[in-house]
Amino acid sequence: MESKPIRIGIIGAGFVGSAFARLLLDDSRSRALTDAATVPVELVGVCVKDAQKKRTGVPNDLITDDVDALFAKDLDILVEVIGGIEPAKGFIEEALKNKISVVTANKALLAAHGYELSQLADENEVDLFYEAAVAGSIPVLRSLRSSLAGEQIVRVMGIVNGTTNFILSKMTNDGLDYASVLAEAQALGFAEADPTADVEGFDPAAKIAILASLAFGTKLEGDEISREGISKIRAVDVEFARRSGYVIKLLGIAERVGDSGLSRRVHPTLIPLNHPLASVNGAMNAVFVDGAKSGPLMWLGQGAGGEPTATAVLGDVLDAARNRASHRHDVPFTFDNRLHFVAEGELRSAFYISIDVDDEPGVLASVAKVFADHEVSILSMEQSGEGPEARLSFLTHVARTDSVRATIADLGELPKVERVGACLRVLTEGL
Amino acid sequence: MESKPIRIGIIGAGFVGSAFARLLLDDSRSRALTDAATVPVELVGVCVKDAQKKRTGVPNDLITDDVDALFAKDLDILVEVIGGIEPAKGFIEEALKNKISVVTANKALLAAHGYELSQLADENEVDLFYEAAVAGSIPVLRSLRSSLAGEQIVRVMGIVNGTTNFILSKMTNDGLDYASVLAEAQALGFAEADPTADVEGFDPAAKIAILASLAFGTKLEGDEISREGISKIRAVDVEFARRSGYVIKLLGIAERVGDSGLSRRVHPTLIPLNHPLASVNGAMNAVFVDGAKSGPLMWLGQGAGGEPTATAVLGDVLDAARNRASHRHDVPFTFDNRLHFVAEGELRSAFYISIDVDDEPGVLASVAKVFADHEVSILSMEQSGEGPEARLSFLTHVARTDSVRATIADLGELPKVERVGACLRVLTEGL
Repeated sequence: MESKPIRIGIIGAGFVGSAFARLLLDDSRSRALTDAATVPVELVGVCVKDAQKKRTGVPNDLITDDVDALFAKDLDILVEVIGGIEPAKGFIEEALKNKISVVTANKALLAAHGYELSQLADENEVDLFYEAAVAGSIPVLRSLRSSLAGEQIVRVMGIVNGTTNFILSKMTNDGLDYASVLAEAQALGFAEADPTADVEGFDPAAKIAILASLAFGTKLEGDEISREGISKIRAVDVEFARRSGYVIKLLGIAERVGDSGLSRRVHPTLIPLNHPLASVNGAMNAVFVDGAKSGPLMWLGQGAGGEPTATAVLGDVLDAARNRASHRHDVPFTFDNRLHFVAEGELRSAFYISIDVDDEPGVLASVAKVFADHEVSILSMEQSGEGPEARLSFLTHVARTDSVRATIADLGELPKVERVGACLRVLTEGL
Repeated sequence: MESKPIRIGIIGAGFVGSAFARLLLDDSRSRALTDAATVPVELVGVCVKDAQKKRTGVPNDLITDDVDALFAKDLDILVEVIGGIEPAKGFIEEALKNKISVVTANKALLAAHGYELSQLADENEVDLFYEAAVAGSIPVLRSLRSSLAGEQIVRVMGIVNGTTNFILSKMTNDGLDYASVLAEAQALGFAEADPTADVEGFDPAAKIAILASLAFGTKLEGDEISREGISKIRAVDVEFARRSGYVIKLLGIAERVGDSGLSRRVHPTLIPLNHPLASVNGAMNAVFVDGAKSGPLMWLGQGAGGEPTATAVLGDVLDAARNRASHRHDVPFTFDNRLHFVAEGELRSAFYISIDVDDEPGVLASVAKVFADHEVSILSMEQSGEGPEARLSFLTHVARTDSVRATIADLGELPKVERVGACLRVLTEGL
């Protein structure tokens, strides 16, 4: 065992960066950290935009606004927690090229450039770890990299966006409409003024891209994932789901299709109430993995927050420190790209479809004929409201997605159909 | 990267051993295994009691009944899946002393001798891994050893015994009594002819000992854990719990008490229905970890079964193979033993207490006085039945366990109390 301390620098001192710095500086943890790292770990500098701003618990003499000054400190590990593509990407590349291991929480960067950065780390024989980029505190990436490395993963599903889960949970519990819950979430700081990245699924798409690339060894970027957000979900949809034994969640999914296909997508989904993902509420995150031999596995934990996310960063830093102390690095996960992407239209799923109709004799017959024409079989139908305010809600059997899309298009053309409301997938394969 | 294959021997070819052998021998996985291990892995022998017995998927020429012949094969990693203390302990010690890394699924052995075996592995600079010993397929031990190594764990709770969870789930869902569900579980093969190890909590106690030793760095054996089984739970208890918003589960718990105390125990517990552990049903296992900074984390998965357990063994084997390929071993977790054991009587908890009484005027007053005498405050009371068949069910506020025990003892002395039925803890601190 060596005793030369591992030198750690941080770029960024927001919630995660400053919480992580406090963990490293906490005297009561220093023995545990040394034990876990097998060598002492030492915080040597924190690079921030505004060096004048006070950071609770982080001594001023560690703070600099000069990134070159940080790099000059003979770093072993760089922790990047500023987020975004640039300048983060440049800093990480500089570190890796200088044989500095990197720990980052940057989901956008990893989703877009994870493959090339992992290669760069390997070429320089250092580590690039990013546990905190997906699902905050939950240590699922390391499990995929190590414990499950020999397992054939069939499917990964995640509730990996706290904002949308907060909104959907509140719509479910309080029977409120999307717009009013969004406004409340914004007032509470749980949603951004421009909520697009969350509610339209960009954020969970980036996370599912990272999960899928580890689970399936396939290079995959966030913008190659089909996305459907939650902004069109109405209180009546949430209520119908509940009455039918489901709860609506925004799921990120990547799954094998047949022998060599891979589907990857983010969309709201009706989840059976007895499924473990159904009870993941509020700001909690969960990742569900189906292995060919392991069967179902689920991880649950806080998906955001400075301290929970900082614990994931710390886990990575200790791992990288152990590796450095024994002069080795983790070989990056192999990307063999043997799986081809399957177009969404080819996928089979059960659906919940609701249409607003003018309830006159013969409407249901004409609607049912459209379903039949596209070979979409109806499992159940329920009418609510009357006359021009009527609403028909359908649960279908499993059908091809393009058949369901065609059904929806044709339904919209029917004279007595005011509009098609929801068209949401239903999770039928269960635990 | 080296190319000399890592040589693996297995002792035991029951459900887990033969499932693991098939995973190693599966051609479609061999590339993934090599990638994950960084070197090829090769199964060189399987030692069994009866070499004549046919083993599906395992070639005869790999099978031997001579353990010395297996050891003579220049093993890198020994997988022990026979279970029990001896001869397993002797085989593992022989392997470690011969610088062979060991992967085992042996919970009884680890709970009793984990500390000394880990020391022996470290002295010989090899690995001893035992993910499969706790909660089958769930990779929680590696997460405690690595991702959470720098976190201060506050509490570990687990549903880690499939038999009792099957029985309690069935009592809950079907309203049946313990005895009839046990008989059914025995008929189905989910419970042993002598179910003591499961229903009296010995098996979960061993598992919680292993979890607690990793989570708290404290040497701790299974028989130092207080145990209470499920055999006295009645259908009326399950029904009262459900009506009050709880479900009864057999929990293994280890938690910090104050600054330097540690409590460890196995007992049936009323869990709020909205707690993630409440929906862990049937043969599923779950481990719930509260970290000081990470907040709550939960792992869920199949707790038993040949193939799920074999995937946990495989994860360990790949980890040990990677280590061997780079000439290193994991430093065992530090046991600093700074925590002292806290006697159960000192712990504070809410309780559910039910007593069968002869319902005459004044009974409740005399019962309530006993609670008050011991400073156990009543949260709610419900009477069911009438006259000599009456039953009083209480939920208490949080109170000292020894005060509750004294209350129970005194209640048993009251002339109109026929018997004290249940006295079960209620989980009040939540997610």
